[in-house]
Amino acid sequence: MSLERRIFRISSTSIEVSALTQIVYADNAATTIMDVDAFEAMRLYLLQEYGNASQPYSFARQPKKAIQEARETVASCIGALPEEIFFTSGGTESDNWAIKGTAFRNYDHRATITSAFEHHAVLHACEAIERLGCPVVYMWPDSKGYISPEMLERYITDETLLVSVMFANNEIGSIQPIKELCDIAHAHGALFHTDAVQAVGHIDIDVNDLGVDMLSASAHKFNGAKGVGFLYIRKGTPITVYADGGAQEHGLRAGTENVAGIVSLAAALRKNVENLKANREHIMGLQKMLLDSLNESGIHYTRNGGDHTLPGIISLSFDGKDGEAILHRMDLMGICISTGSACDSKNTEISHVLQALCMPESLAKGTIRISLGKNNTEEDVNAIVEALKKILL
Amino acid sequence: MSLERRIFRISSTSIEVSALTQIVYADNAATTIMDVDAFEAMRLYLLQEYGNASQPYSFARQPKKAIQEARETVASCIGALPEEIFFTSGGTESDNWAIKGTAFRNYDHRATITSAFEHHAVLHACEAIERLGCPVVYMWPDSKGYISPEMLERYITDETLLVSVMFANNEIGSIQPIKELCDIAHAHGALFHTDAVQAVGHIDIDVNDLGVDMLSASAHKFNGAKGVGFLYIRKGTPITVYADGGAQEHGLRAGTENVAGIVSLAAALRKNVENLKANREHIMGLQKMLLDSLNESGIHYTRNGGDHTLPGIISLSFDGKDGEAILHRMDLMGICISTGSACDSKNTEISHVLQALCMPESLAKGTIRISLGKNNTEEDVNAIVEALKKILL
Repeated sequence: MSLERRIFRISSTSIEVSALTQIVYADNAATTIMDVDAFEAMRLYLLQEYGNASQPYSFARQPKKAIQEARETVASCIGALPEEIFFTSGGTESDNWAIKGTAFRNYDHRATITSAFEHHAVLHACEAIERLGCPVVYMWPDSKGYISPEMLERYITDETLLVSVMFANNEIGSIQPIKELCDIAHAHGALFHTDAVQAVGHIDIDVNDLGVDMLSASAHKFNGAKGVGFLYIRKGTPITVYADGGAQEHGLRAGTENVAGIVSLAAALRKNVENLKANREHIMGLQKMLLDSLNESGIHYTRNGGDHTLPGIISLSFDGKDGEAILHRMDLMGICISTGSACDSKNTEISHVLQALCMPESLAKGTIRISLGKNNTEEDVNAIVEALKKILL
Repeated sequence: MSLERRIFRISSTSIEVSALTQIVYADNAATTIMDVDAFEAMRLYLLQEYGNASQPYSFARQPKKAIQEARETVASCIGALPEEIFFTSGGTESDNWAIKGTAFRNYDHRATITSAFEHHAVLHACEAIERLGCPVVYMWPDSKGYISPEMLERYITDETLLVSVMFANNEIGSIQPIKELCDIAHAHGALFHTDAVQAVGHIDIDVNDLGVDMLSASAHKFNGAKGVGFLYIRKGTPITVYADGGAQEHGLRAGTENVAGIVSLAAALRKNVENLKANREHIMGLQKMLLDSLNESGIHYTRNGGDHTLPGIISLSFDGKDGEAILHRMDLMGICISTGSACDSKNTEISHVLQALCMPESLAKGTIRISLGKNNTEEDVNAIVEALKKILL
């Protein structure tokens, strides 16, 4: 949103919180602004209902109930059962749990298959299990950023333990054929995990329609708090405990529950899922406007990610230009965009995603990611296009 | 605090948040009420400064700076260097990381030595590494709840990898001779970890004076938010990455930073450490008042934990009585106490801590834990004593 001015209702009093600066935030794939309702939902558990949800007295009842309701809300948003939702500290933990928890539970040296352009939370977790003797096979996506069912068929065997392919790529937005990939995995007796951190809350997801055994999500990617996420684990999936300790999260993920964070996650997800169609139409409208304006501007660009991308994730390559320089010049104009995935931003080398696409260096170095969210406006898009014109023409 | 009525200053407007019920909260070892300053500190990062701290644009500067300042604050509170503080999702994660991260980094089948009355986050993490082939040795405390240096000398060898002994026990409050135990570990070439979750923010801690290599803490135990903690790791300590993924936390603990949680942790810790002496005197005064009143009341009790306990942790055994029933009758009177450690509360069996003390069953079953905090008052203590009189006389 260009005008960073929000009204918060706290108790019966209205408070204006106005930011000092006006920014155009177009990096919604890195993180999102917290939804006001999500904040309202968590405030009670930060300030008043602070009881430890695992204690047996009345003062623990409300936080305990809030966690249960949050579990039911999340489950209903993705077609799962409440007892299949395990709250974690975020997408990275969820991915680590899925990869390591499956490998260590089985520890029989059967292979995990993943793709070379997964988020580092999956890729580096795979490298970690490799160091402990569990084999991993990496599939390379095609140049548009897709893993085809045919490709998985070439890699999978009846000895495959787990297939982990992301729902949608965080840098280029390409949505993978999860249902088809999952069917292949199951036909070979393998489990299937999808890192859906970028997709949950932004696109229809039904775990039973997809058939996945595990699915990772993170609240701050859909307008919830940072530091909280969940892992969907289908009933009966063999997986180890991730955090050993108390009996929380059905005995699989110990630690005093982050009640406020969990409540914010559920409130934000419910709101996004309820408004999925409207948000999508709004964002797709802005996306079309942005691309149309760019086409009219005379700026030469290539859009990455092919034809089936997440709404609002717009990866653009400008041949021979410097994405890093574009980012910084945009920043000087108060516009937030990205050059690669958020976790790679300290690194000026070509991201592993663009490398996996075998993109020519002159295109890869000139790549930026604009990611629009439900709060963006037409004015934001105009500002982005005008800035790109100033920088690139 | 018995009167649950707090005034929050948000922007320039004052808001009264008044709870519907008045409770006497005497379970501060399970969790604590969030400090208003800690909430104020985190609010900004929940609502306005929502940028992803790992991004390279200006909008990420403030959250990035806040994390760095929090790291410096925490470091200064325990005598560490900022780069030795690693933020986690809480005490359980910190303990799991210390135990598993040390075992898997070295993976040479050298033994970990711990005590039988550690928190389950340590004990069950030890069982997890045992299942993967890493030996663990369990020391039993004496009947008052202490691990003596002489005992460690009997168990340690030059092949010991790690010694992990908690700073203070969460059920009975007994403070262990960490400095002496740590010296012995180092003399044998072993690393030393202490689970200080119950102690940090409540007692003076200097990691260099103690000599420990790793120390775990959790924000919600010292009036910060739930879902955030830290692990102190002395520079040069060999340990694996805990969460694989992005480059956050010096590349050792991936995941988008929970900026608001981290900021609340630092604000709460600083405030508690600044007021350590006054808080301690206040709590010790209440503790004395409670024990004096009990002595006058004619109630027969045994206090557990010996002579060197954390301020405010009062474990009492009433021979032949039922701790569970006492808890529930106290609850009906609006008083929150515990029978065992928070994580065991679903379990009506004798806690592993009391079992480790070899306490007779009739005493163990009649054990409650009252844990007083800085916000408790003389009225709270009176209410607790009056309730105990009604129940036990």
